[in-house]
Amino acid sequence: MNLPQRQTVVLSTGSLHLRLVPDFSPGLEGVVAAETAVSEVDGANGRLIYRGGYLIEDLAPVASYEEIAYLLWHGELPTESQLDGLRHQMAAARRLNDAGRGALMAMDPASDPMDTLRTVVSAQGATQALTKPTLDEAIPLTAVFPTIVGAAYRRRQGKDVIEPRDELGHAANLLWMMEGKEPAADRTHWVESYLVLLADHGLNASTFTARVIASTQSDLASCVVGAIGALKGPGHGGATFAARTMLDKIGSADNAEKWLHEAHARNERFAGFGHRVYRTYDPRAKILRELAKTAAPELHRIAARTEEVALSILHEAHPERPNATNVDFWASVVLTGAGIPKELFTCVFATSRVSGWTAHVLEALQDLRIIRPASVWIGPAPGRKPLALAKR
Amino acid sequence: MNLPQRQTVVLSTGSLHLRLVPDFSPGLEGVVAAETAVSEVDGANGRLIYRGGYLIEDLAPVASYEEIAYLLWHGELPTESQLDGLRHQMAAARRLNDAGRGALMAMDPASDPMDTLRTVVSAQGATQALTKPTLDEAIPLTAVFPTIVGAAYRRRQGKDVIEPRDELGHAANLLWMMEGKEPAADRTHWVESYLVLLADHGLNASTFTARVIASTQSDLASCVVGAIGALKGPGHGGATFAARTMLDKIGSADNAEKWLHEAHARNERFAGFGHRVYRTYDPRAKILRELAKTAAPELHRIAARTEEVALSILHEAHPERPNATNVDFWASVVLTGAGIPKELFTCVFATSRVSGWTAHVLEALQDLRIIRPASVWIGPAPGRKPLALAKR
Repeated sequence: MNLPQRQTVVLSTGSLHLRLVPDFSPGLEGVVAAETAVSEVDGANGRLIYRGGYLIEDLAPVASYEEIAYLLWHGELPTESQLDGLRHQMAAARRLNDAGRGALMAMDPASDPMDTLRTVVSAQGATQALTKPTLDEAIPLTAVFPTIVGAAYRRRQGKDVIEPRDELGHAANLLWMMEGKEPAADRTHWVESYLVLLADHGLNASTFTARVIASTQSDLASCVVGAIGALKGPGHGGATFAARTMLDKIGSADNAEKWLHEAHARNERFAGFGHRVYRTYDPRAKILRELAKTAAPELHRIAARTEEVALSILHEAHPERPNATNVDFWASVVLTGAGIPKELFTCVFATSRVSGWTAHVLEALQDLRIIRPASVWIGPAPGRKPLALAKR
Repeated sequence: MNLPQRQTVVLSTGSLHLRLVPDFSPGLEGVVAAETAVSEVDGANGRLIYRGGYLIEDLAPVASYEEIAYLLWHGELPTESQLDGLRHQMAAARRLNDAGRGALMAMDPASDPMDTLRTVVSAQGATQALTKPTLDEAIPLTAVFPTIVGAAYRRRQGKDVIEPRDELGHAANLLWMMEGKEPAADRTHWVESYLVLLADHGLNASTFTARVIASTQSDLASCVVGAIGALKGPGHGGATFAARTMLDKIGSADNAEKWLHEAHARNERFAGFGHRVYRTYDPRAKILRELAKTAAPELHRIAARTEEVALSILHEAHPERPNATNVDFWASVVLTGAGIPKELFTCVFATSRVSGWTAHVLEALQDLRIIRPASVWIGPAPGRKPLALAKR
């Protein structure tokens, strides 16, 4: 049989260009799977646009996570009283319910924190009858993430779980419930900046997962639980952990050149470089790189030298590729400076992205059509075959 | 801005046909998202092909669920000793581990059984470090489904959970753990036939969800938990429940004509009719229709009259559509005859499809590329905007 064509071919004559699209684009690269007004990754120009048309670099220095969540959910930034309202709603919903708490305590404290998050969100979101996703569900489901992450972290250390504090926001509550200490303003600021920058990013794999689940008319908890599972993968949210692990192995700025050349010779992929969509420097990486100077000056020095050498090696090996530093690379430095241990990086990513996931689900409900793609059969020709079945 | 073209246009001149594919196909209809040898839905010819090229109508009368799971996982039917080996592996893995049992007991017994299944599978599959999906993980994860479904059912009724029996297979254990009674051979046969027929079905939404999650290099439990969430939706696995609910409302063969005409006049969708891929009668529905005659003679009579009237109404309203009866319609009758209460229908669907989900994940690992589609921005033009942010 003919395998499907995998290459895009452009036929041009004068000003007429005919684009022959491949029958199968692996990874759905370049295939439009949704129309969205939640966020846009303008890869060609290195811009990340949040709902309403805001550029990430305008929002990041001034916005709180709650303001960004409001923006992604409602399409506009909140007034002061709207923001107050949201903060109150989230504060009232930060505690685990009986199922959530029971599921948390059932988990082996040594479990991967993402497995604990996946399980506890699933229990917390359980209902007796199917409900259609609403904003009134999205807000409490988002609010409970710092609680679960903090509890998972403390149980890993054999410590008691700490209750949330109503007067603290999403970022500060995360640090509070991890440590049981009033978090310093600068650390809260670094975490908050990270949460703002990572809250949404077009049809990334976890958001797409949430939209596929939503397309069957399932409930919001199912969408978010599926998205957590997708984020866990090192090809997606797990990449920040991988970047930090690489920096740990490099260890010092002086060692970067030697380590990276050796890794390249072993055909190892450099963690924190390259992206499906950006053709230029990721705008979030640019902001985090700057923040990292004060958040983690020592690690910043190692990372800056690592970046310099890695980009030069990659450019020489693949001059045709953009090979820009991605968000995971500099996020790993800022989160380290903020005192987040690397085994929590993916959970903290989820603590941000949950507002984007839920915003996409709510948007998808407006024009629901089940996401059910086609496939190409590459098995043997079908037909009658002798069945050598064992007796039942 | 220009919205993307949503229609396929075919330009023809003589024997030359040029197909202009739309930029955006809602629901990814007709878009190839994977090459697969696990199963093929040949919609034009009304055929369902399982791995190895087997037609479903050849397998259904003779195969056990374990044989089908083996086929989907390995690509060939098992020998007698291979089948014995699989049965032993599954028997050894049917019990919940500590996390799974703890999560089960944490759930409100009145929870939607699909929420319990989603949560307990998530807890049961938790690990301390990320593992790459393997067949050695797929087998125990599949084996534990009847245990969770049986336990969820008994807890809903305030009854004690029942332990699995090693000498019973997947289908018989499900009935045993629901009822605590040796299941009759005919009821086991009906459940087994259903499990065989539903085990895989191309890139349906839950299988696609599992493959998207797998594409990030996440673990098998995350893939399966996401798939459970997608299956839950009434646009997918939840449709069997909807079909049975419609039959309950109709109540008698005599009432079908009146009820369906009135529902049609109210613009209600008939549950159990229509499918994205089949252009003819769903081959699984055909087999289940026949089984239903003995499994549930009374409900079969109501359903047969309902089908006749519904098809005639739909054909008159939409002569251009295939409008064939789908698998959910007749599955709801057979499952009823087998004594499965309708609130468990979607869970029993999952108890079958989990072998297909895991087979697809294992296949996807062979050529892994993150599934990260593109989107079209339909929000306002991006740019600098006055920020009216509240004070932090």
